[in-house]
Amino acid sequence: MYCLAELAEALDLEFSGDASVVITALAPLATAGPGELSFVASKKYLGDLAATGAAVVIVHPDFAAQCPVNCLISETPYASYARVTQLYNNSPAVAPGIHTCAVVSEHADVHETAAIGPNTVVEGGAIIGEGVVLAANVYVGHDSRIGADSRVFPGVVIYHNVHVGERCIVHGGAILGADGFGFAPGPVGWEKICQLGGLRIGNNVEIGACTAIDRGALEHTVVEDGVIFDNQVHIAHNCHIGKNTAIAACAGIAGSTRIGANCTFSGMVGVVGHVNICDNVHFTGMTMVTKSISDPGSYSSGTPMSPTAEWKRNAVRFRQLESMQKRLARLEAKRET
Amino acid sequence: MYCLAELAEALDLEFSGDASVVITALAPLATAGPGELSFVASKKYLGDLAATGAAVVIVHPDFAAQCPVNCLISETPYASYARVTQLYNNSPAVAPGIHTCAVVSEHADVHETAAIGPNTVVEGGAIIGEGVVLAANVYVGHDSRIGADSRVFPGVVIYHNVHVGERCIVHGGAILGADGFGFAPGPVGWEKICQLGGLRIGNNVEIGACTAIDRGALEHTVVEDGVIFDNQVHIAHNCHIGKNTAIAACAGIAGSTRIGANCTFSGMVGVVGHVNICDNVHFTGMTMVTKSISDPGSYSSGTPMSPTAEWKRNAVRFRQLESMQKRLARLEAKRET
Amino acid sequence: MYCLAELAEALDLEFSGDASVVITALAPLATAGPGELSFVASKKYLGDLAATGAAVVIVHPDFAAQCPVNCLISETPYASYARVTQLYNNSPAVAPGIHTCAVVSEHADVHETAAIGPNTVVEGGAIIGEGVVLAANVYVGHDSRIGADSRVFPGVVIYHNVHVGERCIVHGGAILGADGFGFAPGPVGWEKICQLGGLRIGNNVEIGACTAIDRGALEHTVVEDGVIFDNQVHIAHNCHIGKNTAIAACAGIAGSTRIGANCTFSGMVGVVGHVNICDNVHFTGMTMVTKSISDPGSYSSGTPMSPTAEWKRNAVRFRQLESMQKRLARLEAKRET
Repeated sequence: MYCLAELAEALDLEFSGDASVVITALAPLATAGPGELSFVASKKYLGDLAATGAAVVIVHPDFAAQCPVNCLISETPYASYARVTQLYNNSPAVAPGIHTCAVVSEHADVHETAAIGPNTVVEGGAIIGEGVVLAANVYVGHDSRIGADSRVFPGVVIYHNVHVGERCIVHGGAILGADGFGFAPGPVGWEKICQLGGLRIGNNVEIGACTAIDRGALEHTVVEDGVIFDNQVHIAHNCHIGKNTAIAACAGIAGSTRIGANCTFSGMVGVVGHVNICDNVHFTGMTMVTKSISDPGSYSSGTPMSPTAEWKRNAVRFRQLESMQKRLARLEAKRET
Repeated sequence: MYCLAELAEALDLEFSGDASVVITALAPLATAGPGELSFVASKKYLGDLAATGAAVVIVHPDFAAQCPVNCLISETPYASYARVTQLYNNSPAVAPGIHTCAVVSEHADVHETAAIGPNTVVEGGAIIGEGVVLAANVYVGHDSRIGADSRVFPGVVIYHNVHVGERCIVHGGAILGADGFGFAPGPVGWEKICQLGGLRIGNNVEIGACTAIDRGALEHTVVEDGVIFDNQVHIAHNCHIGKNTAIAACAGIAGSTRIGANCTFSGMVGVVGHVNICDNVHFTGMTMVTKSISDPGSYSSGTPMSPTAEWKRNAVRFRQLESMQKRLARLEAKRET
Repeated sequence: MYCLAELAEALDLEFSGDASVVITALAPLATAGPGELSFVASKKYLGDLAATGAAVVIVHPDFAAQCPVNCLISETPYASYARVTQLYNNSPAVAPGIHTCAVVSEHADVHETAAIGPNTVVEGGAIIGEGVVLAANVYVGHDSRIGADSRVFPGVVIYHNVHVGERCIVHGGAILGADGFGFAPGPVGWEKICQLGGLRIGNNVEIGACTAIDRGALEHTVVEDGVIFDNQVHIAHNCHIGKNTAIAACAGIAGSTRIGANCTFSGMVGVVGHVNICDNVHFTGMTMVTKSISDPGSYSSGTPMSPTAEWKRNAVRFRQLESMQKRLARLEAKRET
């Protein structure tokens, strides 16, 4: 727990009010009470700010005068709030060392400050960096590497020849480096194309629960620094995901597609294979991306929700759009004559 | 195995026919043979009923006279059939006790009637209730609780501070309480918002394989009693899912959304964040839910399937709808003049 | 590593050029260098072929004359290339035997040539065939069977009464045989229908990471020989998937649906329950399949991606399609009068 002055110092921010007030917890602005810290990131919450019971609020300099309680003053209140959550992180700490029920190859290189949980398996040639936490029931395959200060939650499977960078977080059930979906039609069925490439993941990457990122067919699948993946995302073989791109839950990106930097995907977006998406593209939820994009901006597809009876009538007409267009053109032509 | 009279007593139903006939198995009405039990839940199967070879059929009182074989008479034949499946459940039983290959913290509280499978890890502060079964390779984090008679299948990961109620079933690969997808844009990339809330799951909840339900950012994510989730559902942080709501496979619900009671989701429905869905709403498959709903009823979106060549022609026209509408309006205006 | 003559013999192909050239690796045609093998599967890469630095290229007889380097001549270059990837497979080998940290029931039947990894659990009545590899942290339930030469990657959960055929590959996090989503509405909530059927998977089936295939309600869910599933596919109870069908990532198939042979699904396709899809059907990505299909061919649904502002205008009009159609009909009627 920190007092206001300590928080201000930790975040390198100015503050106003009682330097000694102790923050015991974080809470939403509308419900925060004594000892609690909150934040205002947008004008639309100024009403809540006026009525807040919080002990401390992180505010933009423009709103500081309107803050009725102690405040931390930040040009980026939301980012500052994020940093406070890190100070108040309550995720259980893990002591360094290899659990007696872990199975670590004598040919693996595990840093003495790393923590390896029970039933976790580390194969030969793997390199586990300084301060890494591999929780319980994790698997790290041959010649894979986990960079310093990364944390891998229970149930994660990391195949061979997968490199995970520093300060990454991999959530439960994520599968890194499984075979890409590569098959050639053969005389009696599908002929498997063994996936000989690996997977390279940069620093500061977070990977959500049950997300699967496949290894490459010949070259590596690549995830650059700072990329964040939500749960149940599928990244196919040979994709390249650019720096700081954010992909929300249940997205699926087909093989060999290249996504630029600083892109943001809402949930359930699907992207076909072998296309290029430039930097700074946003997709709204459930967008079906069927071609390359070279202009930054926001893209969408889909139809809006309606009551089912109404939707059915309109959906039928979707299948008549071509004929409606022709009828319209015919009427226009007649009109002209 | 039960005879007809025993089943009638167990289900508190009337029966008609040979009290001593023994039911060895359950089978679909059309294929059921000697010793087998089936049911009729709707008028459209009355033809199958007339021809059935089943030993016993569960029928509504209205159809009992038309049943050519022994019958159990129920106002709710489908629910009665469900109860019979429970009597004939063939899922292997698990003996109480802690497997020698389990890793249970001395600071965990495990009821003496609970069964803890091999390679299962239970952390300090966890409370495992009466009759609970944790199968093999399960992880239960610090201070989490599993209520009486709940069953957790292999490979499930339950993070810290997750409470699961009584009589719940959690299927393989489900991940409960991973971090929500919370990040603030920072000066050099995404700044992680540590997820300080927990996850609270009520009684009689079933969670399908590979379903992920995230913990809350500050407050808890909440799943009320009787909710059922199919496989590969994604529930984001701070969602609240109302009592007895059923969510079919591959649905994704974004953060802070509130779903009412008794809602039913077909597969692959997507719901945006921060909306409210009232009680008794049904979504057809793949619906894109982009706003709050305050009227019960059925809602849909999407376009109907067509042969690809035909679809392509119509899909192009979708992008011209606005201009088609304008052309139509122009023709109408001219017509009026 | 193989020289050209050895590869030609292994694949039963003719070759042209230096029989003794040694292939050290495989690479894409455009970037391949000395010692590397590539292939040309389509006319559109003939430009790359002319400029290639590869040591050996697999080419169709029609293009052999245009190959500037050594070549292997194949009627099916892509399938031949697949077979070469199998010769160069770099997935770490696993030695036979049961790891000391595996937990294998004395009532299981494990072939002496099978490999059972650390923390893997095999229950009573299970049969593990010749040459099978169960990696680390796998679970195989009671009375389940894994056929000869199948490979199961870490973190896979196989419930009881699931049969997997020969030469299958099951990737990390796949869940085979969890309960189907069967519930009857009861007086106080959902009444569980215990799933009494099993799961039967044929030979040469590959199952991707985090894919879940449910057991049947009464009868078995069935996957025929040669079917390939990508990651995060959901197959509900009582589905029947025909021979050599390929299902790309994130597809969801609802209960009791029957898919024919040789079908191909692009990513994120959704299929409703209780329909029949004939052989040789292709679905483009994100197609919503709401009815049975009896004519082979390609099917689609969805709307094309647009810039969001443009999409919004058109999407609004989708909800007016029925009224636009009526306005159009009215204009046509007036025109006729």
